Amino acid sequence: MTKPVQRRRLVHVGGDADVPRHDSLATEEPLEIRVGGRSLAVTMRTPGDDFDLVAGFLVSEGVAHATDHVRSMRYCAGEDENTYNVIDTDVAGPGAHVAHARERHVYTTSSCGVCGLASIDAVSTTSTFDVATDDVAVDRGVLGSLPDRLREAQDVFDRTGGVHAAGLFTPDGDVLCVREDVGRHNAVDKVVGWALREGRLPLTGTVLQVSGRASFELVQKAAMAGVPVLSAVSAPSSLAVDLAERTGLTLVGFSRGGSFNVYTRPDRLR
Amino acid sequence: MTKPVQRRRLVHVGGDADVPRHDSLATEEPLEIRVGGRSLAVTMRTPGDDFDLVAGFLVSEGVAHATDHVRSMRYCAGEDENTYNVIDTDVAGPGAHVAHARERHVYTTSSCGVCGLASIDAVSTTSTFDVATDDVAVDRGVLGSLPDRLREAQDVFDRTGGVHAAGLFTPDGDVLCVREDVGRHNAVDKVVGWALREGRLPLTGTVLQVSGRASFELVQKAAMAGVPVLSAVSAPSSLAVDLAERTGLTLVGFSRGGSFNVYTRPDRLR
Repeated sequence: MTKPVQRRRLVHVGGDADVPRHDSLATEEPLEIRVGGRSLAVTMRTPGDDFDLVAGFLVSEGVAHATDHVRSMRYCAGEDENTYNVIDTDVAGPGAHVAHARERHVYTTSSCGVCGLASIDAVSTTSTFDVATDDVAVDRGVLGSLPDRLREAQDVFDRTGGVHAAGLFTPDGDVLCVREDVGRHNAVDKVVGWALREGRLPLTGTVLQVSGRASFELVQKAAMAGVPVLSAVSAPSSLAVDLAERTGLTLVGFSRGGSFNVYTRPDRLR
Repeated sequence: MTKPVQRRRLVHVGGDADVPRHDSLATEEPLEIRVGGRSLAVTMRTPGDDFDLVAGFLVSEGVAHATDHVRSMRYCAGEDENTYNVIDTDVAGPGAHVAHARERHVYTTSSCGVCGLASIDAVSTTSTFDVATDDVAVDRGVLGSLPDRLREAQDVFDRTGGVHAAGLFTPDGDVLCVREDVGRHNAVDKVVGWALREGRLPLTGTVLQVSGRASFELVQKAAMAGVPVLSAVSAPSSLAVDLAERTGLTLVGFSRGGSFNVYTRPDRLR
């Protein structure tokens, strides 16, 4: 299996003379996710915690929401060698048909074409867990401290400066799980997949802190896993706020140095 | 059509009391790209320069590489209303079969399964333009100044702080085209699509500056458009460096405050 960090030569330009150096870079490799031997998706990811990534992806897509929905996962050996870049899964349960529909490329979006509202509706109808009724209360000081706590728990970033992170915390700021990846969405999938495999879904009463922006996709992943509070270091998008509002999720953005913006459901702050 | 920036209410937390505010957020909406009426892809993007985005996506995917390969583009009206989120295209030329193969979901990756090498090979074989032989020379000082020049040309970012940008520059640092989007890859597609529509492909002798990380996907898009120099504000991934090396593209990372790292082909610096 390819290591999550790789060394590369480079020339540093900046002072009086160009300086040859070595640098540690985050590894990026494709991962093909299969269900019952058939390809469901290919994602570019940093190798490591691959089973978590696959499990989380299946939760995000509405294929699985309980531990026993994913019966097995295994790396597929290729003709010549195992690249550790293809994982086949065996899924069961009420969401299994979603994977099969995806394989046949059956689209369920509204006939008016693609619009943000249709996307939001799709999430609202497929999510098994209700985050709106989650009555978790999070201290303002703890919430503002999570970016620093996440950063402290990052391993690959210290060496590369090139990966995103997602961290799951208790309302008291205790870390439950931290995962890193070159892709923002993969880091969240890895955390959610860890929770699925640990039998912890829905993630009631938890806070998910992410290192980058809050896009629609990240709010979707949080909602599908039952996370009531999502906090991002950077800006949310318009559709991220709309989906958070619709699902009753608390969305925090621009969390830096202890101050932050709360876009939806500020009633969970104490 | 939805505006690229939207206002949302929020609560700012940081001082002694929570303060209600309004904030400008970058719009995120899905865009479905169709070829001959059949769905090719859906991407989450910031509305604006949509035809550039579609044209650039077709270049990145190897469907088009000359202006007349994209015969027409139009927004599809839905049953009730035009969401301006679906664009149908009519493509011709040697790459048209790629779109049709994609529609039938025919995969062309190596039988050993998915690996980085297979991905690199796929790009190497499908790119029409050769960037390795591009003998452009770029001044160190000019190259180090591009992040600031890009930032100055950004419009949406000033208002939202939440979008990525891609800027195409001459070796003297003159701006040719700047595009913004919530997605890094979309910003680059919009620049490349602008170039296709202006009849400027291949982008020989140009420098592409991007605001975020340099992933495999961004190097791929630059190579497919014939861009010889790609510079990123943040870190490159391992596969991005590998692909740059293979295609003969100059890859620059961590370009901040005038200093930067050159990972491949430093011979183009002067």
